[in-house]
Amino acid sequence: MKCLIVAAGKGSRLWQRGDVKPLVPILGIPLIERVIRSAVEAGLDDFYVVSGYRGERVRTFLDGLARRCRVKITHVINEAWEQGNGLSVLKARKYLNEHFVLLMADHLFDPSIVHELIRQPPNDGEILLAVDSYTSSPLVDMKDVTRVKIVDGRVSDIGKGLMPFNGFDTGIFLCTPPLFEALEHVMSEDGDTSLSGGVHYLAARGRVKAFDIGGRFWIDVDDPNAIDKAERSLLARLRGKQNDGPVSRYLNRPLSINISRYLARLPVTPNQISLASFFCSVLAAKLFALGNYLALTAGGFLAQFASIIDGCDGEIARLKFQESKFGGWFDAVLDRYADAFLLLGLTWHVYTNNTNKFVVFIGFMAIIGSFMLSYTADKYDSLMRSLTRSPRGIRIGRDVRVFLVFLGALLNQPLPTLVIIAVLMNGEVIRRIFVCREQH
Amino acid sequence: MKCLIVAAGKGSRLWQRGDVKPLVPILGIPLIERVIRSAVEAGLDDFYVVSGYRGERVRTFLDGLARRCRVKITHVINEAWEQGNGLSVLKARKYLNEHFVLLMADHLFDPSIVHELIRQPPNDGEILLAVDSYTSSPLVDMKDVTRVKIVDGRVSDIGKGLMPFNGFDTGIFLCTPPLFEALEHVMSEDGDTSLSGGVHYLAARGRVKAFDIGGRFWIDVDDPNAIDKAERSLLARLRGKQNDGPVSRYLNRPLSINISRYLARLPVTPNQISLASFFCSVLAAKLFALGNYLALTAGGFLAQFASIIDGCDGEIARLKFQESKFGGWFDAVLDRYADAFLLLGLTWHVYTNNTNKFVVFIGFMAIIGSFMLSYTADKYDSLMRSLTRSPRGIRIGRDVRVFLVFLGALLNQPLPTLVIIAVLMNGEVIRRIFVCREQH
Repeated sequence: MKCLIVAAGKGSRLWQRGDVKPLVPILGIPLIERVIRSAVEAGLDDFYVVSGYRGERVRTFLDGLARRCRVKITHVINEAWEQGNGLSVLKARKYLNEHFVLLMADHLFDPSIVHELIRQPPNDGEILLAVDSYTSSPLVDMKDVTRVKIVDGRVSDIGKGLMPFNGFDTGIFLCTPPLFEALEHVMSEDGDTSLSGGVHYLAARGRVKAFDIGGRFWIDVDDPNAIDKAERSLLARLRGKQNDGPVSRYLNRPLSINISRYLARLPVTPNQISLASFFCSVLAAKLFALGNYLALTAGGFLAQFASIIDGCDGEIARLKFQESKFGGWFDAVLDRYADAFLLLGLTWHVYTNNTNKFVVFIGFMAIIGSFMLSYTADKYDSLMRSLTRSPRGIRIGRDVRVFLVFLGALLNQPLPTLVIIAVLMNGEVIRRIFVCREQH
Repeated sequence: MKCLIVAAGKGSRLWQRGDVKPLVPILGIPLIERVIRSAVEAGLDDFYVVSGYRGERVRTFLDGLARRCRVKITHVINEAWEQGNGLSVLKARKYLNEHFVLLMADHLFDPSIVHELIRQPPNDGEILLAVDSYTSSPLVDMKDVTRVKIVDGRVSDIGKGLMPFNGFDTGIFLCTPPLFEALEHVMSEDGDTSLSGGVHYLAARGRVKAFDIGGRFWIDVDDPNAIDKAERSLLARLRGKQNDGPVSRYLNRPLSINISRYLARLPVTPNQISLASFFCSVLAAKLFALGNYLALTAGGFLAQFASIIDGCDGEIARLKFQESKFGGWFDAVLDRYADAFLLLGLTWHVYTNNTNKFVVFIGFMAIIGSFMLSYTADKYDSLMRSLTRSPRGIRIGRDVRVFLVFLGALLNQPLPTLVIIAVLMNGEVIRRIFVCREQH
């Protein structure tokens, strides 16, 4: 299915952030790139972008993006961009003979909205408008939003000042060619060159079906305040990672999200962040191994800092559409090495002060237990999934382990820390073996 | 689809191995249990077994098997078992109104033969006979086998002394009810009560289609010599495990198969073998840690022995239909612990004789490298599979690692061994990271 994106307007309220609105960055990624990458995630790959104001710069950017994203982007030029956006839609008429998705270059959205929308083909002569019926959404600018009135699943009226209303126009459409006829009609009859005008014409004739987005994320980025809201929403969406352990959920994640907010604006890749976190851990291990309390404390803080930073690689990957199988795997491999080095450093610290061979054995059991916990996690989790039940109790993962190391270093209790980790980790592995045995 | 199994005959040539032929054990599992479990693997679960000679004992065994295998087994009794096996088939007539699979209780076969056969529905009035066109198969007793002549994909003649012939009757059929009419006809007309008689009647009328088994395993177990051949074939089939490393392929597997041959007759489970191998490794590690050369050598032999035994759990599981997801996982988890203990023992040995802290670091790197190799194996292999290419070069796995430990112990070179393992294992992990990065 083809996708038309309107990116011709001037966007004067965003001048202070960049001189072309579609190229204004949101957490390091230009608005129109976010729109196109979200549409790609939803399953689209054939784009028609209408450019107008400073169109040359937009088109140059899009040519590069098409190569990077491996999608087709066709330029549609609207020199009369100062008139309404209905005119921009009409400019693309010759390319669009069937159903197509219509998006705005300045409206961000959850890709799942478009993913579902394109699976709801409209009847002939009708168009589908994605509407948000959560009318008290804090993301909506009540003064500027286009309101809709929905009756029996159809948009009966649409307009900026509309009263009463029970939904918002999200700027996401599934269109059919009759939209072009409606736009031409209102243009020649009423001189109305806006897209809303055409939609209003169809709505009055009962030909606009409403598709409720069910409270999912969307935002119209029109002014600096909206940019701020958009960035905060994108960051907040990172919180819900399912397999976050308790330390990650309540300590690391809130901090790492704030760090990611700044990192997103820099040209660093997720894999570089993984490496940085790994080297912090190695340095922490080296500090542990020095054998004195000051270095131990410093190492503890550095280890916990590395654990926090370790959340940023995945966050940046999600924020900047850079997720990859390799990235996740590379991070996991480095984490295993980092864990082992931290525990070796701690063991070395204890052994320096207490040359009992038993200490080495405890350290070894802590290292092997940590490894085995990670080694059994994949298979245990997939067994649990195949039994379609979620594992019970607290998930003892890397976040908990590093936090124990941090606490142990701070309290100058490295040996008890090693004992606790050895017992907890190996105990959990043995528990998993029994659970799997019982369930199989 | 229903499955009829003929198990009524006396099988006098097997008296010395047990007094009821269907219950004669092949590598610890009675003949009829092997036939039924193979059919279950092929996708069948509704069995009708005709018993006759000492039928009470056969039926008691089958009742237990039905519970253990969770399948339905209906008894069909043929008191006139001294007559031909066509009569046994006729006894089941009232249960079988549609297509059904017909098997012999004394014919072992590769489950994939039946799996494919049941996907080839015969035309009305026809039956399908699985034939083996490999007429020089060493598994066939030329004096006793039923020969067939195949012309244009149909059996044109069938009989024991048949000349010329171009295939063998494997005793595996996909039947339709007209077989019963044919059996009745030859019985009343010619007094022939054999199954071959009925098949011969249909074949003469062009109603027996041949299904070529393409050289896959089957054997008619009629005498002690055939039992021996059957056991050797089942054991030989264990060799082809795809992800065996070089040491496993050329040293461990040939030895472990011979051990499995004896273990199969004992009431030990695969998980018990996994545990036994694990404790051998722990004991070997303890011997290493003692610090003298004699104990080091003994530990080396014990470690290699444990590695060989470690192949038996999977072999016994396959030989005795005891394969399970849990078993494979449990074995892998124990292997990781065993690896770590062996390398810790070796490190301890070196450190006892040379209290340089660097030794501990080398040992630690060997342990972490071994772990990481196993940790990355799953993800690396699945990435390679998703790229549909097989990994290049020699697979450095557990078999190679333990063999290096064994050689190092034997040659009294524990420190160089640890260095080699540390470099090889971590080097391979780093290579995998680069391969995955390049391919992703």
